[in-house]
Amino acid sequence: MAVIGVGRIGLVHAENLARRVGHARLVAVTTSKQEGAIQVRHLPGEVKVFPTLEQLLAGQRLDAVVVASSTAAHVENVERCAAAGLHVFCEKPLALTVEGCDRAAAAVTKAGVKLMIGHVRQFDSGCVEAKRSIDSGAIGQPVVYRAISGDVDPPLPEFADPDVSGGLILDSMYHDIYLGRWLMADDITRVYGEGDALIDEGVRSVGDVDNAVVSLRFAGGAMGTLTASRVTRYGHDLRAEVIGDEGAVQIGYLRQTPVRLLDQRGVHHDMARTTAERMGEALVAELQAFVDCVIHDTDSPVTFRDGRATVEVAVAATRSIHSGEPVDL
Amino acid sequence: MAVIGVGRIGLVHAENLARRVGHARLVAVTTSKQEGAIQVRHLPGEVKVFPTLEQLLAGQRLDAVVVASSTAAHVENVERCAAAGLHVFCEKPLALTVEGCDRAAAAVTKAGVKLMIGHVRQFDSGCVEAKRSIDSGAIGQPVVYRAISGDVDPPLPEFADPDVSGGLILDSMYHDIYLGRWLMADDITRVYGEGDALIDEGVRSVGDVDNAVVSLRFAGGAMGTLTASRVTRYGHDLRAEVIGDEGAVQIGYLRQTPVRLLDQRGVHHDMARTTAERMGEALVAELQAFVDCVIHDTDSPVTFRDGRATVEVAVAATRSIHSGEPVDL
Amino acid sequence: MAVIGVGRIGLVHAENLARRVGHARLVAVTTSKQEGAIQVRHLPGEVKVFPTLEQLLAGQRLDAVVVASSTAAHVENVERCAAAGLHVFCEKPLALTVEGCDRAAAAVTKAGVKLMIGHVRQFDSGCVEAKRSIDSGAIGQPVVYRAISGDVDPPLPEFADPDVSGGLILDSMYHDIYLGRWLMADDITRVYGEGDALIDEGVRSVGDVDNAVVSLRFAGGAMGTLTASRVTRYGHDLRAEVIGDEGAVQIGYLRQTPVRLLDQRGVHHDMARTTAERMGEALVAELQAFVDCVIHDTDSPVTFRDGRATVEVAVAATRSIHSGEPVDL
Amino acid sequence: MAVIGVGRIGLVHAENLARRVGHARLVAVTTSKQEGAIQVRHLPGEVKVFPTLEQLLAGQRLDAVVVASSTAAHVENVERCAAAGLHVFCEKPLALTVEGCDRAAAAVTKAGVKLMIGHVRQFDSGCVEAKRSIDSGAIGQPVVYRAISGDVDPPLPEFADPDVSGGLILDSMYHDIYLGRWLMADDITRVYGEGDALIDEGVRSVGDVDNAVVSLRFAGGAMGTLTASRVTRYGHDLRAEVIGDEGAVQIGYLRQTPVRLLDQRGVHHDMARTTAERMGEALVAELQAFVDCVIHDTDSPVTFRDGRATVEVAVAATRSIHSGEPVDL
Repeated sequence: MAVIGVGRIGLVHAENLARRVGHARLVAVTTSKQEGAIQVRHLPGEVKVFPTLEQLLAGQRLDAVVVASSTAAHVENVERCAAAGLHVFCEKPLALTVEGCDRAAAAVTKAGVKLMIGHVRQFDSGCVEAKRSIDSGAIGQPVVYRAISGDVDPPLPEFADPDVSGGLILDSMYHDIYLGRWLMADDITRVYGEGDALIDEGVRSVGDVDNAVVSLRFAGGAMGTLTASRVTRYGHDLRAEVIGDEGAVQIGYLRQTPVRLLDQRGVHHDMARTTAERMGEALVAELQAFVDCVIHDTDSPVTFRDGRATVEVAVAATRSIHSGEPVDL
Repeated sequence: MAVIGVGRIGLVHAENLARRVGHARLVAVTTSKQEGAIQVRHLPGEVKVFPTLEQLLAGQRLDAVVVASSTAAHVENVERCAAAGLHVFCEKPLALTVEGCDRAAAAVTKAGVKLMIGHVRQFDSGCVEAKRSIDSGAIGQPVVYRAISGDVDPPLPEFADPDVSGGLILDSMYHDIYLGRWLMADDITRVYGEGDALIDEGVRSVGDVDNAVVSLRFAGGAMGTLTASRVTRYGHDLRAEVIGDEGAVQIGYLRQTPVRLLDQRGVHHDMARTTAERMGEALVAELQAFVDCVIHDTDSPVTFRDGRATVEVAVAATRSIHSGEPVDL
Repeated sequence: MAVIGVGRIGLVHAENLARRVGHARLVAVTTSKQEGAIQVRHLPGEVKVFPTLEQLLAGQRLDAVVVASSTAAHVENVERCAAAGLHVFCEKPLALTVEGCDRAAAAVTKAGVKLMIGHVRQFDSGCVEAKRSIDSGAIGQPVVYRAISGDVDPPLPEFADPDVSGGLILDSMYHDIYLGRWLMADDITRVYGEGDALIDEGVRSVGDVDNAVVSLRFAGGAMGTLTASRVTRYGHDLRAEVIGDEGAVQIGYLRQTPVRLLDQRGVHHDMARTTAERMGEALVAELQAFVDCVIHDTDSPVTFRDGRATVEVAVAATRSIHSGEPVDL
Repeated sequence: MAVIGVGRIGLVHAENLARRVGHARLVAVTTSKQEGAIQVRHLPGEVKVFPTLEQLLAGQRLDAVVVASSTAAHVENVERCAAAGLHVFCEKPLALTVEGCDRAAAAVTKAGVKLMIGHVRQFDSGCVEAKRSIDSGAIGQPVVYRAISGDVDPPLPEFADPDVSGGLILDSMYHDIYLGRWLMADDITRVYGEGDALIDEGVRSVGDVDNAVVSLRFAGGAMGTLTASRVTRYGHDLRAEVIGDEGAVQIGYLRQTPVRLLDQRGVHHDMARTTAERMGEALVAELQAFVDCVIHDTDSPVTFRDGRATVEVAVAATRSIHSGEPVDL
């Protein structure tokens, strides 16, 4: 397998493939930056570095790829890899638009290869347990979904740029959208958003927002509310809850290590600050699921429909934030 | 002092006046129900029971009253008590409409008596500590406010009736609105709501919703999201948090007593189920604050403007839920 | 009723009798200090202040008393009040020695009055819930009892003095001993202690220890371990747990208000710092139980045997700490 | 490297060497049981299985070994591997007696190979953070150490047998002893223990105890109390705390996944049930530390003196439990 793009998340995937994912072997990465090439050197096995996807496809025999390039390049990368007959794991979102999703889907369908989108929280043991609990009927009928996602540091403006990342909603709140669809087992039919660039000058300079709240309506009548922030300095804050007519289930806590310091000012403890800290095991489980569905020729646990619908909702919420009007889907 | 109406919250006020509030004496209550009269009997001191407010005002010398009647009767009760020269503590909301608020205000202004509205969470030690923390700059500039309020049991249809209680938003989410205005030290300028009667047939039968999520926009640009539910069977769920550009503060936890049971199925503990459990101390502190401002002739810690603005937002959010459109204030 | 001695805990009892305990009226206190007399003045009702117990008994008609004088004076005070025909609530420990306990018991038996010892944790809702849980069989057969008690500030040397207070074990770990006997429903048959004055010069100067750990053996074979400290600067740390062969129950948490502050250094919250914060409700419930057993002529919920056995264990543990040998009871 | 013995912990070490430890390669294991051989098959790479250590040493070129056989065989295995010139990582305890420790030390000294003992908690991020915090002075001078270790299921009698495992203290409380010496940075000079077979018939049948509490005295005057249980059905309960004269630090919590279920009976969550769940990362970090000290020829982070002193304390505590007398070291 090869990893296309070894930025922050691409490097994590490369490490996981090299060390922790069973029945897979990392043989190459693409990166145009010297920094990426250097970081790959410490990986076990012989990992070749190609400056471009073209050169990778020309120079290396592969079974599958992980597309972890910038979001704007996802569709083209998926199309070329599919055309080369490679199974594709693509980081979320599959595309910046619904049309892009459809192009990518057409390419993999034509090539007859597998496509799996990186809905990592579906592989987090906490989310899996919550899903199991909801499906078992433990909370009755789900009626409200609440979620929040916050990152310690805002991205650099060139990554925050909506033309590159899709903006806060597509880039970050995206996770809370697919998680909500999955946990509630329902489609989202209306969104309304408030958002603004209140903190980060870089985010503002490229025309995006750094904080947003979005109201959701599900097809079955249930409702939801999502909060996303580029700047939660206090930690990597990922929480979600589903309230049903008989109970509720909550995912996430404001704690990382099991250590508390107690002094005259009170009680103090840490919380997770990075995705690697918070989602480390889930990132391994996710790639393992992709590898397994390729090897055993089974369906991807994240369907194209899930990825497309999530992009659709995210695009609509982004539009609502800028128009001030609710958007029906 | 007297308590007008000894339903659930009126009875708590009567008990607090009789036992726990300093420099005050409960001498009478009004209640048209035999049940209320019976429950008052166990209070210390001689507490007279009058069937109507008229008879109370005619038959008892008083300095001040607590209006704890049904919301629909608040304005008339405030007007009559003010006209009788009594200082008035009125349960929230002051009225079902902004116009009603203005009528009540005119009455107390004319009479030259004090008016305090029951914004109880401003007297909860947790909320007070959070406010102090925010005002001290500990979290930087506040940018997002999130809150949730849920009651274990839905009210009877006759109380849930929007003509009586104002509906879910005015009756329950009201607390999260004034708390948000207070913690954020800002006015709310736009609301958008989603809501529905998803669970309780009684609530639906009177034309109200039992669950709602509301998006807020503050004048200074910050945003918020509120969730209210008539039916959180798992407990009386009151939580609020403010996220700033340098930190965050959270109020509320899902725990009541400091006891945990551990067995083969995991770890188990309780959570508060009633307002008396969760807000017991705050209800005493609130009445004490009213008594103190009467005795010392100081300003009420809850202003008429706070009460009016909260009703205005709540009415707008209720309208948005039914119209499907955002409402500017 | 009257309160004998209005030092720290005596003042709390006086306030509770005056304001919160039903069917009781505080009419007098004794105190030899001007400070105590001043603090009593703000209590509601007319509370007379007598400089000595003699003068109180001579000058005031009473039904019952709360003995909250220094421990060394407990026995004499109980004897005199009993001789005067008064029911007695006596702060723990009843005496500094088993012989003292027996003298006090003889006095109340002879006078035919009631005696209740201040085992306050038996009235804490957390401890009560834990007891209920254990007795219901939820944890199976109890096999290990663990407890810790810590005070934020060490007492002044004149109070820490073992001749006055009995020392750390009789004064503070005492609570963990009776709680253990009660929760485990068993007698303690052997103790071994380690202790030293490691921190506080004042405690050391009067020949006491400021930290101790004590091992327990129960008659039925179960075992226990207690920790007490005069100086847990971080808070008033009261925790206890019982481990059974099928589960466990824990009492106590390191948290006071439901507020968390989150910033770049982590998550921060408070914990209780005083007995009044941690045990406020229990202190009221305890006095109410005494008043109720006097009024209804029922047995005291804390028996003389409980108080005597606790003193016996505490004295033995103190001896073990100084001798370095286990002590059988 | 090879793993000697692939029982429960040996298999974890084999998996970690095969998958997660850098700069190391697992080439062989020894096991006399078919079951062990089968479980090794799924490991990546070619891992040979030898029925005995003799055959391993004769048939395989090696640099280092992990000794994970039964404790009773540790010394002989260390001697033979050292004689073969192999660096040795040995599971705790190094031996069942101090004399055994000395024999093992003599062998590795003579052979000039490295020896590291599996004090895994020194590699747990929580314990490391607590140590850092204590050493930074955050809690002042440490005065009390409290710890508890409990296993969900008791071992089979043949493993619990004191002649095989050393008994509860050497096998399980061992961890709390070395952790205490490390966190307190001090030697233990006196122990007193209470213990009994209260629950498990199998443990009783081989003459061991299933629950124990042990009091400790440190050279510098500080004290401690340890609790160990073979049967904490509610979870794998590992907690430790150090109380200083200015604060305290606590390790461990009763929670595993970040999921809470809330229903009418209260709030419910899980806790860790196995060492792999609770100590997974620490087991990898520990082996990595061994590999690193071999590769870079640096000192083992766990010294022979640490291992020997821990065995000495554990043996003394075991003796105290059976004799009923404190034991000075």
